[in-house]
Amino acid sequence: MAAHVQDVFMLFGDSITQGAWEPGLNGFGQRLSHVYARKLDVLNRGLSGYNTEWGIPVFEQCIAKRSDENAPKLRVLAIWFGANDACILPSPQHVPLTKFSSNLNKMVDMVKSPESPRYSPDTRIILISPPPVNTLARRADLAARNPPLALDREFEITRAYSEAVREVANAQNVPFVDVWNAIWTAAGENEESLSKFLGDGLHLNEDGYKIVYNELMKTITEQCPEVHYDNLAYVFPPWAEIDLSEPAKSLYIM
Amino acid sequence: MAAHVQDVFMLFGDSITQGAWEPGLNGFGQRLSHVYARKLDVLNRGLSGYNTEWGIPVFEQCIAKRSDENAPKLRVLAIWFGANDACILPSPQHVPLTKFSSNLNKMVDMVKSPESPRYSPDTRIILISPPPVNTLARRADLAARNPPLALDREFEITRAYSEAVREVANAQNVPFVDVWNAIWTAAGENEESLSKFLGDGLHLNEDGYKIVYNELMKTITEQCPEVHYDNLAYVFPPWAEIDLSEPAKSLYIM
Repeated sequence: MAAHVQDVFMLFGDSITQGAWEPGLNGFGQRLSHVYARKLDVLNRGLSGYNTEWGIPVFEQCIAKRSDENAPKLRVLAIWFGANDACILPSPQHVPLTKFSSNLNKMVDMVKSPESPRYSPDTRIILISPPPVNTLARRADLAARNPPLALDREFEITRAYSEAVREVANAQNVPFVDVWNAIWTAAGENEESLSKFLGDGLHLNEDGYKIVYNELMKTITEQCPEVHYDNLAYVFPPWAEIDLSEPAKSLYIM
Repeated sequence: MAAHVQDVFMLFGDSITQGAWEPGLNGFGQRLSHVYARKLDVLNRGLSGYNTEWGIPVFEQCIAKRSDENAPKLRVLAIWFGANDACILPSPQHVPLTKFSSNLNKMVDMVKSPESPRYSPDTRIILISPPPVNTLARRADLAARNPPLALDREFEITRAYSEAVREVANAQNVPFVDVWNAIWTAAGENEESLSKFLGDGLHLNEDGYKIVYNELMKTITEQCPEVHYDNLAYVFPPWAEIDLSEPAKSLYIM
């Protein structure tokens, strides 16, 4: 069985999280895995197609209760939903805006509220807003399917869900990564230009993930520098620091 | 705290393992993280510069005892050393060849022997041989440092360590990934041509990691298909399989 030697950086979200280690994309998950090597285990808890409504039961199972003393410490928890919640009816993925906000609050409270069995005051929670949707590309993608599908997301609606994430983050006083505005600004506030960052109108390409990674690291640097990789030591020492006359002394650390 | 929702695929080794999520390389760690998403957590237990002698104390701490019933199951354990053990004296990284073999045996026994407190009969252990060293590139790299360093590895010696891994794997009857020969063959059995696969003569570039990933997946396909990603289900269901009238029913699985 695998012992806990490293604390955890959990990425909880939808397909944009699940796909963040995909070859060729240099996704933010992969890049976090790289820079946090030997420091934190970056765990992929991305669930393609999920909204917050389906995410909550999974979330409950991914966060250990306080009573489970052997579970690894959750140092950083990034929660990233909205892209699917913002689907329009009749999509089964649709979650009403107020319900979306209350679901996000529920997740944050599960970790942040002293009354919660999963209370974890040392976990740094980071909320991330969904990227803007390029409805031109998305419409074309869906129309080309067999059978063709109607457009399932609207530009302004996804924007509203992104703003709801900001409001929850502000009200909960947790760091917020504004992916929606970062990508919108990078695209010159032009929906067609979003194709530079979203391959199919919905999922991020390499340049899109680069923005996510940079914005996330900026947020960590400014708002929770104690979990920045530069401020975390290797769990096991760099080889040049091993006591060569008595290696075990530097290597048994548990 | 983080709950265990996925079993583990552990990559235990040296810098060639530690760097296997590096941006731009599409390393085998990253690619495993991608294909095993929602199935197994691929954990980076690569330790730059380490040999098996220093690896053993870390290994002991990374593998939980049987008595620790709450630890996540270790489904696959890849052990990949030799690149540093094969250093020549006076390098402090040097481990004599017979000691290298006995250290590898010790690691395998720790998991495979019924007498071991870390006995885990369901763990699939995979041994990997180190890549060949390009001494031309390595010599140039070391000579260019300040102060210049002498060559610390020899081609035939690394080959001997690679053969030792094969012998341990055969004697222990565990799957073996022959990275040494796969890369040597791809380079047309020409040391200079190894530069196609090893950037600095020692560490793999994108084409080198591609061979490692393909050889590893071939070995899994042929020798332990039950842990091939195609044969493992998602821990949490694909969204299209969620019971929409009663989502919780499909989503509470623990």
